[in-house]
Amino acid sequence: MSALNPKRTVAELKELRALTGDANGAQRVAFTPTWVKAREWFQKKLEALPVEIHRDAAGNLWTTLHGESPKELLIGGHIDSVPNGGWLDGCLNVVAGIEILRRINAQYHGKPPVTVRLVDWADEEGARFGKSLFGSSACSGNLDMNEARGLMDKQGIKLPDALKNVGIDFERVKDSGKELKNAAAYIELHIEQGPVLLDLDLPLGAVLGTFGVERHAITFHGQAAHSGSTPMNRRKDAFLAAAKMSSEIYKIAERSGNGVCTIGSCITKPGIVTSVVEECRITLDQRHLNAGKLATMLAEAKAASERFAKEGNVKVSWERIWQIAPRPFNDELINFCDESIRETCGKSHRLPSGPLHDAAEVAAAGVPTVMMFVQSLHGISHNKIEDTKEEHLELCVTAFDRLAEKAMKWISHR
Amino acid sequence: MSALNPKRTVAELKELRALTGDANGAQRVAFTPTWVKAREWFQKKLEALPVEIHRDAAGNLWTTLHGESPKELLIGGHIDSVPNGGWLDGCLNVVAGIEILRRINAQYHGKPPVTVRLVDWADEEGARFGKSLFGSSACSGNLDMNEARGLMDKQGIKLPDALKNVGIDFERVKDSGKELKNAAAYIELHIEQGPVLLDLDLPLGAVLGTFGVERHAITFHGQAAHSGSTPMNRRKDAFLAAAKMSSEIYKIAERSGNGVCTIGSCITKPGIVTSVVEECRITLDQRHLNAGKLATMLAEAKAASERFAKEGNVKVSWERIWQIAPRPFNDELINFCDESIRETCGKSHRLPSGPLHDAAEVAAAGVPTVMMFVQSLHGISHNKIEDTKEEHLELCVTAFDRLAEKAMKWISHR
Repeated sequence: MSALNPKRTVAELKELRALTGDANGAQRVAFTPTWVKAREWFQKKLEALPVEIHRDAAGNLWTTLHGESPKELLIGGHIDSVPNGGWLDGCLNVVAGIEILRRINAQYHGKPPVTVRLVDWADEEGARFGKSLFGSSACSGNLDMNEARGLMDKQGIKLPDALKNVGIDFERVKDSGKELKNAAAYIELHIEQGPVLLDLDLPLGAVLGTFGVERHAITFHGQAAHSGSTPMNRRKDAFLAAAKMSSEIYKIAERSGNGVCTIGSCITKPGIVTSVVEECRITLDQRHLNAGKLATMLAEAKAASERFAKEGNVKVSWERIWQIAPRPFNDELINFCDESIRETCGKSHRLPSGPLHDAAEVAAAGVPTVMMFVQSLHGISHNKIEDTKEEHLELCVTAFDRLAEKAMKWISHR
Repeated sequence: MSALNPKRTVAELKELRALTGDANGAQRVAFTPTWVKAREWFQKKLEALPVEIHRDAAGNLWTTLHGESPKELLIGGHIDSVPNGGWLDGCLNVVAGIEILRRINAQYHGKPPVTVRLVDWADEEGARFGKSLFGSSACSGNLDMNEARGLMDKQGIKLPDALKNVGIDFERVKDSGKELKNAAAYIELHIEQGPVLLDLDLPLGAVLGTFGVERHAITFHGQAAHSGSTPMNRRKDAFLAAAKMSSEIYKIAERSGNGVCTIGSCITKPGIVTSVVEECRITLDQRHLNAGKLATMLAEAKAASERFAKEGNVKVSWERIWQIAPRPFNDELINFCDESIRETCGKSHRLPSGPLHDAAEVAAAGVPTVMMFVQSLHGISHNKIEDTKEEHLELCVTAFDRLAEKAMKWISHR
């Protein structure tokens, strides 16, 4: 029985849900007993295969099927979830990965042309310590040790102590980097967590990379004045200048091609009905796949804010809240992903990822990387109502398996 | 000595300030001992004149200089202030009125062509019970008795009980309306409390009336969505629609001629940096001297909000917070006021009043009314830094006295 069985993947996803979820959703929070139970279930599924399994210095779980070549195809995902999470976020890839290992093992009689490894990253969600991509950023070397050393959960337990409890030495987590020594390609399957494929009525998409993010607070400083006795042309209206940014960011995003810009919050002072707004603070979140275009979006927003401030005779100041660089994926792997999707269901779509994923860390470490997205119903995630049609789940296993095959061939011929 | 002496008015204003103010400003809050002291001082200033003084059923203090005709020219102001108030707000008129009575009495040897009355309205500011224009609205008949009966101060004392303590029977306050029986014209002098005359570098202006006000809360209802995974064209951004109102109200105000519109507050929900705004509530305050134009401004704002909601695929709802009708002043009296100003200092300016005044109540009662404004330094009031140049105070006494003379002649010839 060498054929891929996507229906088995759907059945196994349901089995995992029954074992590790409840009426409020998935409860596989990293380093908890339920998470340990999920990993035990996962390893039991692999018992029949000739694989080697070990946990690295950061708690990531590696399953290796040795091939003719030491060069490796990595298939990555995360079995951990947020509290009350969706049933597919992260574990879809891990469970589909089991099925793909089965198919490869059967087809190549235990010896594929390249080594194939399935990695279950530790604590992708960062639900407990507020720091996502823990295991993959330790492995890529990007983890900020000083920042991570001080992280505390709500009970006041520090991350190093929590790791010690599950047998991980915090000071050695970056030793996990050696796992990438022979990595030649990395592929990851995930639900989209957005509405793009749903809107296009397409089951699958090839992911171009993860967005870079620029996140700022912008404050306009005007002058409070009585709403009855102050003529319009005498006002220094901080809200007027801030409000002009709202339409402008849509133009900036459009000019950028595929970027997005969001004003998520607006606070006015004194904030009373009888006074012109003296101070208005908005937040701006800008994301783009291209670092240059992200920088242009930021520069355009700054220039616009200064123009609006000048027009309204107010002042403006900026404060950076957070930033991260874009992680574009590998062009050839993106093409393979696209082909695999078209071969499976006729039509594909290329899209960037707004949310971050472990794949971003692997790409940052220099490993050629790509992700495949499957449509999210409601365009929603991190919620118990997160869902995907079963027929789409089956399609994604098939397409992702095709991608794995193409990637193996690509690696072996390089 | 029949000549008007504006310098004496300035000296008497300073005398009153020393008697009833402190380092934090004027403390003549209505119905307090300091207010009683101010009224006693005021009555003492009138001792030398052949006038009759009495308090009406609402606590307003009427000083009457009987003339050839029973037809009356009323000069009105208020000696009460907000706590820590300015030294001129309200009492400027009362103290200037004393000087004008002196001049008229001297010039006409105790018998002017028409009866002249100076009224000190009770509790114009509403500082204690949160309800302004108490005495004048009782007199005009507009006071809402049910609402006023329930008003309470911070100590939990009800307005009727507080009035009883100063000898006023709340249930009879509207009997004061009979005081207006022979009223033929009402004039009031006040500091501008805004920046218009300051900007024009003019000492005095003729007031066209008090603005009508429409005050609403406008809520746009969109949809929360992840700032990274939601394409721009898929958003239902409540802030975008609300923000478009900001520029629009400037256009609406401009089209209206002399109206003003203010968005004083903006609240966003969920109000976080990583989410498109689901709900955005703004307040809109619109004011105009012309009832029809005020209604047009409101209709235009409503239409614009619906247009922006439709453009952004969001919903909008309106809730009225408060409204009051405009009180336009008498055209002939406005002309006399303008003339008096031009004769006094060369140049005049006509302007509406954003804040309300007792004059609005008298106008609403059908008495031909006008106000004169004198420039406010800093364009500010209800604050101890409220001030007006002494030379402007002297000019306003002169011009206001000319207006009184013109109004008397107008009344006697009607």
